Amino acid sequence: MYRSHNNGELNATYINKEVTLAGWVQKSRDKGFMIWVDLRDRYGITQLIFDEQRTDKAVFEKAKSLGREFVIQVKGTVIERESKNATMATGDIEILVSELNILNAAITPPFTIEDETDGGEDIRMKYRYLDIRRNPVKNSLLFRHKVAMGVRKYLSDLDFCEVETPYLIKSTPEGARDFVVPSRMNQGQFYALPQSPQTFKQLLMVGGMDKYFQIVKCFRDEDLRADRQPEFTQIDCEMAFVEQEDILNVFEGLTRHLLKELKGIEVAQFPRITYDYAMKTYGNDKPDIRFDMKFGELNSVAQHKDFSVFNSAELVVGIAAANCASFTRKEIDALIDWVKRPQVGASGMVYVKCEEDGTFKSSVDKFYDQEDLKKWSEATNAKSGDMIFVLSGPADKTRTQLSALRMELATRLGLRNPEVFAPLWVVDFPLLEWDEESGRYHAMHHPFTSPKPEDMKLIESEPGKVRANAYDMVLNGNEIGGGSIRIHDKDLQSRMFSLLGFSPEQAEDQFGFLMNAFQFGAPPHGGLAFGLDRLVAILGGQETIRDFIAFPKNNSGRDVMIDAPSAIDATQLKELYIKLDL
Amino acid sequence: MYRSHNNGELNATYINKEVTLAGWVQKSRDKGFMIWVDLRDRYGITQLIFDEQRTDKAVFEKAKSLGREFVIQVKGTVIERESKNATMATGDIEILVSELNILNAAITPPFTIEDETDGGEDIRMKYRYLDIRRNPVKNSLLFRHKVAMGVRKYLSDLDFCEVETPYLIKSTPEGARDFVVPSRMNQGQFYALPQSPQTFKQLLMVGGMDKYFQIVKCFRDEDLRADRQPEFTQIDCEMAFVEQEDILNVFEGLTRHLLKELKGIEVAQFPRITYDYAMKTYGNDKPDIRFDMKFGELNSVAQHKDFSVFNSAELVVGIAAANCASFTRKEIDALIDWVKRPQVGASGMVYVKCEEDGTFKSSVDKFYDQEDLKKWSEATNAKSGDMIFVLSGPADKTRTQLSALRMELATRLGLRNPEVFAPLWVVDFPLLEWDEESGRYHAMHHPFTSPKPEDMKLIESEPGKVRANAYDMVLNGNEIGGGSIRIHDKDLQSRMFSLLGFSPEQAEDQFGFLMNAFQFGAPPHGGLAFGLDRLVAILGGQETIRDFIAFPKNNSGRDVMIDAPSAIDATQLKELYIKLDL
Repeated sequence: MYRSHNNGELNATYINKEVTLAGWVQKSRDKGFMIWVDLRDRYGITQLIFDEQRTDKAVFEKAKSLGREFVIQVKGTVIERESKNATMATGDIEILVSELNILNAAITPPFTIEDETDGGEDIRMKYRYLDIRRNPVKNSLLFRHKVAMGVRKYLSDLDFCEVETPYLIKSTPEGARDFVVPSRMNQGQFYALPQSPQTFKQLLMVGGMDKYFQIVKCFRDEDLRADRQPEFTQIDCEMAFVEQEDILNVFEGLTRHLLKELKGIEVAQFPRITYDYAMKTYGNDKPDIRFDMKFGELNSVAQHKDFSVFNSAELVVGIAAANCASFTRKEIDALIDWVKRPQVGASGMVYVKCEEDGTFKSSVDKFYDQEDLKKWSEATNAKSGDMIFVLSGPADKTRTQLSALRMELATRLGLRNPEVFAPLWVVDFPLLEWDEESGRYHAMHHPFTSPKPEDMKLIESEPGKVRANAYDMVLNGNEIGGGSIRIHDKDLQSRMFSLLGFSPEQAEDQFGFLMNAFQFGAPPHGGLAFGLDRLVAILGGQETIRDFIAFPKNNSGRDVMIDAPSAIDATQLKELYIKLDL
Repeated sequence: MYRSHNNGELNATYINKEVTLAGWVQKSRDKGFMIWVDLRDRYGITQLIFDEQRTDKAVFEKAKSLGREFVIQVKGTVIERESKNATMATGDIEILVSELNILNAAITPPFTIEDETDGGEDIRMKYRYLDIRRNPVKNSLLFRHKVAMGVRKYLSDLDFCEVETPYLIKSTPEGARDFVVPSRMNQGQFYALPQSPQTFKQLLMVGGMDKYFQIVKCFRDEDLRADRQPEFTQIDCEMAFVEQEDILNVFEGLTRHLLKELKGIEVAQFPRITYDYAMKTYGNDKPDIRFDMKFGELNSVAQHKDFSVFNSAELVVGIAAANCASFTRKEIDALIDWVKRPQVGASGMVYVKCEEDGTFKSSVDKFYDQEDLKKWSEATNAKSGDMIFVLSGPADKTRTQLSALRMELATRLGLRNPEVFAPLWVVDFPLLEWDEESGRYHAMHHPFTSPKPEDMKLIESEPGKVRANAYDMVLNGNEIGGGSIRIHDKDLQSRMFSLLGFSPEQAEDQFGFLMNAFQFGAPPHGGLAFGLDRLVAILGGQETIRDFIAFPKNNSGRDVMIDAPSAIDATQLKELYIKLDL
């Protein structure tokens, strides 16, 4: 062992002890007769002192040669510091060095290894091993480990069994695009990397495993939107002999446990709202409920007046921004411009100031009197001093726009505190969604999700209205987990495939093994999956997942550090029975 | 929830309680007026009773229809059993059923769902979800989970951080064959699936993570020998600022902990033997030391007599089989035939009976007198009543043959008790091994392994004699883990690549990122990896890893349950810029 202690543990109780430390030179201050070095490792920083008076001359000279990020080993005595630093665990002491051993020199790093670095995203990714030396990244990775261990421990204690499912599976055209792997031993055939272990966990339920979980990598070959990764990690779970209520309770328990253990925060029972309610109230199926600003529908109180814009709209809907009546004309115009940006796409916005004296001042005073506006304020739950913003147009589109405005206002008003946690369940998702492009229904969750029995009567006549036993856990405006009660009946599964446009042959070819399994006694079962990357980032109080992944890929799916993907040998291709087709 | 209790927890304390149970019909005995059903789930079996006298007629009739593996839910009362079964946790009670709900019917399974099944390997794999219902497989998976949790907990408590490394990495021609993944977004380029996270864990050490572990899938596209899988799981570990001794201590501690926690077995400090000693003493670098039978070299006492076979041999070497002097001529001949099989390849075998009276009787009495044979018995540590078997020929080949015989004898003599655990370390492996085929040296462990500093003087003159800081943990004749202290110096790494036949360009192209990283202050580091599949199987007292893997592949790398790999669409190929080349 190159050290007797790490750089985070020495304090005044060690004074006069001989110690051996090792680590990186964080910085070095040379005062001529005295040299101080901050020695860093994963656990902290310890100050070293080399003193012309007290340090051997050769050691002192060697200390002068130390550069940033040199790896050194020192022996010395713990002494009391003259100027103590109360913000550091080791701030009361320093090490008077007697021996210095340079374990490895370092060339100058391409960016500063500090909490706030001068390195941009690209250079940090190329030298990710240096980036990981920085506290924000290092601590994110340590935090991720804590979350994963917390999940494993909690679920194991509830008798869940972690089962590793295979990575080399079968490609299915349904859903997102698969990554595929040519098989050398099975000429002309390919494995696929799993988008999720969905069918395997269902087979484990058929196999009687009863309670399964796995923290597992999944793969999707999608064009990468911001903050998406081609490989990502799921906390994948499944239970047998359960109903939706049981699953919500177990995984609400898990999330509450994590919040308590990792953040010290006690959260009450999660609110449960339906998908329909979420869409109507927040314009969004993953509402951020750290703040209120619920939608107020204004059709009944804003239409049938002389304002043709509202009269012709399918939906007139507003929100009350608390304490914003004092917005200046300029601030309001900026917000109107914001909703008119192509990314949001509103054609305009009406506002109403709810003055402190109980009167209203709006941009549509020409059409609406105080009595009308009072009704608007009631519908949007606005109080004196608030500002109401109103959008109108086609219902779905307008809700989406108002949802965007709601989030933007919350950001501007500082209502999205990353250290406040507001989880909830959204339930009763539609089973199917219509896809304009392919002119058919798609499974909103996936083809294994069970419809609500009471809605089965609509399945032929109005399939779009059938609700599913499907649920999402939402945290601070992010879907962090989602799942469903599955179909466990062969005939119903078969009918579902046909509803989704599978021919019987396609269904058999792709999922025959699952339907076959259902014949041998499949129990009722259901589950869910959490996105670990996102969950960890949110619990860590961050917007982006990238620093919670040790070696992330960029938006072109490249690992710029190792330079992958890359060309491979012709002989390698030949062995795999493929050739390039550029 | 479909149940109030599981099928393993009810006992006499529950008598008269109303319960709801769910599970599979293990078997049903219909006595006409009474029907007993064994209801099974992951947790156990509970006996149900339907009684013509006491059970509702409709329920009784329904019970008659129950077949094997039907999934049912019952309500009923816990009553005392008339004929108790002390071997079952629930053997004191049964459930007098009042309600019966068939959750799912089942067709007849293709093999019996019993501990001893009538299903062969192929059919069990095709219907693996049924196989998992059997105790031996189910318990193996539960045991695997316990081992994995035990490892995670132990290492986390020692401040190891589990870090997920990427699965989509870069192909390197060194080592085994990679599985590759064509990239759609990077035309004509391929990712590779990792054979191990070796370079990433080293970069984490450069990044200051200090102590890393990961339980991680790895991939090798090799022709599958028996009991190998194309995807397998490693416990992958790395530490910084350590020497070999530190690593041996930590992972010996882990293994000792697992043996204690999971098997209740206390093991003393592991013996440490060198590679050279292992090869000379056991003919094998992974010796099974549950039994002795060390090699005795007989050159000095068996050569220079009139037996030309021995005189012309590079090595004459024997082992003493304890208490085998009583072997019949037939038994001896069978063993001679065994060593002469092509798989072993000996040309013949000499034997010496060490009679109870202290005399010797050998197959070469013509050439050797009692005095000679006494020396043989001393060299092989044979006692009265033992039998000495002697092979001769080229040294390496003969040792391998005698090693095979040693294992065979141990098997025949019942010395390989799977519930006895004899771990050890084999250290000081050679750095390089000569590969006849390519006419050059290969890295015995991998190209990142550091040579012993004291052997560096031989690196140009006699590279084959240079020893590495490399070590294996061996358990019951299996290598369950191996690792090394790594090179952390750019120049030495570069020299190593050149020794292994890399041109500077190839080294830069494939491992430039690692050598580059070493320039920025790489700490001394090292680690090891355990094969989890094998470790779990051995701890579980089994020879084969297959039942410790939920969904294994067969020897052609196929998953016969889901029928993977399989053909993929032409459009999918097109998108990936590849075509078939059959």
